[in-house]
Amino acid sequence: MTMQAPAADTQSLWDQFPEGAPRDLVRAGVDAFAARGYAATTTRQIGREAGLSAAGMYVHFASKADLLHTLSRVGHQDAATTLYTALDVQLPAVGRITHATDAFARWHAENHRLARVVQYELSSLEPAAYQEIAELRRGMQRRLVDEIQSAVDDGSASVPDVAGVARALLSLCIDVCRWYDPAGPQAPQAIGALYAELARRWLQSAVEG
Amino acid sequence: MTMQAPAADTQSLWDQFPEGAPRDLVRAGVDAFAARGYAATTTRQIGREAGLSAAGMYVHFASKADLLHTLSRVGHQDAATTLYTALDVQLPAVGRITHATDAFARWHAENHRLARVVQYELSSLEPAAYQEIAELRRGMQRRLVDEIQSAVDDGSASVPDVAGVARALLSLCIDVCRWYDPAGPQAPQAIGALYAELARRWLQSAVEG
Repeated sequence: MTMQAPAADTQSLWDQFPEGAPRDLVRAGVDAFAARGYAATTTRQIGREAGLSAAGMYVHFASKADLLHTLSRVGHQDAATTLYTALDVQLPAVGRITHATDAFARWHAENHRLARVVQYELSSLEPAAYQEIAELRRGMQRRLVDEIQSAVDDGSASVPDVAGVARALLSLCIDVCRWYDPAGPQAPQAIGALYAELARRWLQSAVEG
Repeated sequence: MTMQAPAADTQSLWDQFPEGAPRDLVRAGVDAFAARGYAATTTRQIGREAGLSAAGMYVHFASKADLLHTLSRVGHQDAATTLYTALDVQLPAVGRITHATDAFARWHAENHRLARVVQYELSSLEPAAYQEIAELRRGMQRRLVDEIQSAVDDGSASVPDVAGVARALLSLCIDVCRWYDPAGPQAPQAIGALYAELARRWLQSAVEG
């Protein structure tokens, strides 16, 4: 696969927040939650890292929970947009899926710090926020199921369990955020390219197991 | 693959600790770290959940860090033993690897709470403890690289990147601990069986990508 999947970058993710305190706060939130976890982080610490008082933070976010919800929404929406945009490419189904695997794996390398917070602090979300985020997650699973099912239907893929393979593919890409090391030997693009080929192998088997 | 891989079970993992306070403390540690994270958990809370005073905990563990180190060592050693035992089965290389994938994926479903603590609190370990655990982790990666390389050497497998596929296989299985839900539709055995077939597909491709 030589086609370049669209790149994601946490830096540009923050551009949707006004420069100054709001942008400084979301950055400080990721730093703090990634370093100590949500439960061990105080509003005061986040404010201090953003150069604000705790009261100064409340102007922009109603609570620490509200900040986590915002980070989780931004992270999930950007990951989902990356997946859906890559799946919208004009290719046969197997090509769409491998292209999207490339993009989704790279997203989790390039945004690994935000992705860790978003993935590992799901249970810290308040109930209504959790429901909203869970629906974003189910949407990704459903779309991938549809794509794999169309590859099976057109005869270009054969899998033992469409939903199971969709879940495994998302899982494989998401877990990149856990082990990816910017100082390590594997660049995001190399991970994306390898994972695209691994996705293809899941869809097109030499012999049925 | 009809052969049953050896099962792991967190319950029996605790049997190596003397009944009473030591066993109650490791269980309480997993509960507390899984619920709130390491940084937000106090020694007092762990002791209370085990029915002990903070001082009572110090009889058995020198510190909260020592308890995390013990949990991490027990978890990593048991996961590694599960992997190595499954790889020691008398089968050709591809069969060994799929058998081990089955066992390793199931371990991460059956021990998902311990596995989450062990995986997500690596950076909370003190430097010497981290080095010890990192070596256990490198051992698993090396062994899997050797196994995949022997499958490539005997002509039964062909992969684009031996080390990359080994890392992806460990990653796929480890991430089961993140999304596995005992109340969900997928039983550990079904996950193991699916993942064994997915591992086989990575090793034996229909066409080279």
